[in-house]
Amino acid sequence: MIFPSLPDIVTAHDRIRPFIHHTPVFTSGQLNKLFGCELFFKCENFQKAGAFKFRGATNAVRLLPDEEKQKGVVTHSSGNHAAALALASAMNGVKAYIVMPGTAPEVKKNAVAGYGAEITFCEPTAEAREKAARSLAEKTGAVLIHPYDNFNVICGQGTAALELMSEINDLDIIVAPVGGGGLLSGTSTAARAVRKDIIIAGAEPLNANDAWKSFTTGVLCPSVSPDTIADGLLTSLSELTFSIIRNNVDQILTVTEEAIKECMLLIWERMKIIAEPSAATVLAAVKENPGFFRGKRTGLIISGGNVDFRKLPF
Amino acid sequence: MIFPSLPDIVTAHDRIRPFIHHTPVFTSGQLNKLFGCELFFKCENFQKAGAFKFRGATNAVRLLPDEEKQKGVVTHSSGNHAAALALASAMNGVKAYIVMPGTAPEVKKNAVAGYGAEITFCEPTAEAREKAARSLAEKTGAVLIHPYDNFNVICGQGTAALELMSEINDLDIIVAPVGGGGLLSGTSTAARAVRKDIIIAGAEPLNANDAWKSFTTGVLCPSVSPDTIADGLLTSLSELTFSIIRNNVDQILTVTEEAIKECMLLIWERMKIIAEPSAATVLAAVKENPGFFRGKRTGLIISGGNVDFRKLPF
Repeated sequence: MIFPSLPDIVTAHDRIRPFIHHTPVFTSGQLNKLFGCELFFKCENFQKAGAFKFRGATNAVRLLPDEEKQKGVVTHSSGNHAAALALASAMNGVKAYIVMPGTAPEVKKNAVAGYGAEITFCEPTAEAREKAARSLAEKTGAVLIHPYDNFNVICGQGTAALELMSEINDLDIIVAPVGGGGLLSGTSTAARAVRKDIIIAGAEPLNANDAWKSFTTGVLCPSVSPDTIADGLLTSLSELTFSIIRNNVDQILTVTEEAIKECMLLIWERMKIIAEPSAATVLAAVKENPGFFRGKRTGLIISGGNVDFRKLPF
Repeated sequence: MIFPSLPDIVTAHDRIRPFIHHTPVFTSGQLNKLFGCELFFKCENFQKAGAFKFRGATNAVRLLPDEEKQKGVVTHSSGNHAAALALASAMNGVKAYIVMPGTAPEVKKNAVAGYGAEITFCEPTAEAREKAARSLAEKTGAVLIHPYDNFNVICGQGTAALELMSEINDLDIIVAPVGGGGLLSGTSTAARAVRKDIIIAGAEPLNANDAWKSFTTGVLCPSVSPDTIADGLLTSLSELTFSIIRNNVDQILTVTEEAIKECMLLIWERMKIIAEPSAATVLAAVKENPGFFRGKRTGLIISGGNVDFRKLPF
C-alpha cells in the first residue's frame, strides 16, 4: 500500500490549480466568542460543484492516459463525488457514468444530470452501489474512479488543507469530516507534513461511527446501516484511508444529529453561508468538545454546500 | 433639502471603517452564463448584523454629540435597521429603543434583543410605527435615527457602492434594492459621482411599487398596503430619498414575487450564500430584463442575509 506524501499533494495542486476555485477562508467573531476559540473555515462549499470532491475528481481525471479518457469514467457516490466527477469529466471531454442511490438529495441528482453524466440509480447500500459500478465498468470499459479509495483522489482532496495552512499560520488543530476518509486522509497527510505538532481530528456522526470504531479498536469495522442527516458521510473507511488515518490522525470526534443540525443552522444564521449537514459536523465537534478546542486556533474544512432546500431539518 | 455628495460618503467611510466589515465581491460563472452578463455581487449579507444597514446606523451614531449619546437612540424598522442600530449603539455605549412590527421575522426580533436593545412592538403600518417611535422619543429624550430619511444614514449606506466601485472597474450598471430609498440614495450618489455615465437602477417588488410610481409620475406616492415576501422593502420613499433618486437614478425595475423567490433560490443554490428576499430583487431585476443587462458589467448590492429559516418560500 503506497501512502500519499506532501510532494504528491503539492504536485496535485499544481495540476488542478487552473481548474479549481481557490476557496476563501472565513472567520466569524460571533462564533469565536460563542465557542471560545479561533475558528478558520475553509469554504469548500464555494468549490466548483459545491464541494471539495471536485479537487480529487479533477486530479484523477487529469491523470488518466488518453486511451482511458476515451472510454470514460464510472463511479458510485452518495452525491458530491458524483457531481464533481461529472463536472471534472465534462471539463476534460471525458464521458462519465454515475451510479447513485435513489435516496440521494434531488439537488445532487440534478447537478449530476446537469453536467451531462449518465446516471444509473441503485439501492442505498454499499454492495448495490459497488456492484452496479463494476457492471457498468465491464460493459463500457470505463475506468472506475472510486470516491475515496484512490491515491489520486486523496492527493486532490489534500489540496484544500494545503491552501488553508499556507494562508493561516500556526493552526493548533485541523478538523475535517470523515465518511469514506478521502478528505481526512488528504487533509491529515498535508497537515502533518506542513506542521509536525498540529492536532488532526476527524468529525464523524455518532450514527455512522465506523471510523471512530475502526480507529479506537485498530480493526477496520465498516458501518452497519448508518442513519444520519449527514448524507455525505454514510460511507465506510477503506483499507487505504484507514491506514493513512491511523498513521496521521489524533482523534475521531463523534457528534450527535442534534449538534449537526444546530451547528448547520449556526453557520447559516451567523455566517450567511450554506453548509451541508456533513460540513456542519466539524463545528459540531467544536461544540461538543469545548475543553479540547478552548483557546485553540482551529482550521475547519467546510466540505460542501449542496443542500436540498425543500428538506431542511429546521 | 441638502443632498449628500461624494465627499460626504468618503468621509462617512473613513469614520465607520474601523467598525464595519469590508465585505467581499462575489462572482458566479454559472449565473453569468445563465443571464448573459457579468455580475458582481457586493455581499452586504456578510456585513455586521447581516445587512448594509449597519453602515448607516454606525455613521449616524458616531456623529451624535455626547449629550445625545447619553440619552440614547430610537427607531422604527421592519428589522434590519433595528438590528443594525441596536448593534451600532451597543458598540458605542449608547442605549437603543427599537419599535418593530409584531410581524417582523423571528430572526430579526432575536437579533435586536440579543444586542441589548429595548423593543416595543406595534402594528405593521407606517403610521403605527412612526407614532410609537415619536412617543418613545418624547418619553426618553432619545434621538430618532430614521431608517432612511436621514442624511447621515444615507451617507453610510453609500459606502457599500463606494467599496464595490473601487474594487470593480468599469461597471456599466449598478442595481440596489429600493424600499425607503436610503440604500439607493447612497448608492446612486456614490456611483454617479465616481462614474458619470454608469446606469443606476433600483429593484423594487411589483407588490410594493411606490418608488416606481413616484419615479414615473414625478409625484411622491407612498405605498398602500404593500404585500411582498421582501420584508425589508415594505417602506415608502421620503421626500429626501425621492429627490435624491429622481436626481441620480435611471430606472426603477419592478419584479414579481415569483422572480424574487426563484432568484433567492438561485443565489442560495449556485453561490452557496444566504441572501434574504429583499436582496434577491436585484437578481430578479436582471432575470426579468434580459435585454437591459445583456453583456453588461453589472454591480448588484446584495443588501442582507437575515432570513427566518423556518418560513422559507421554497
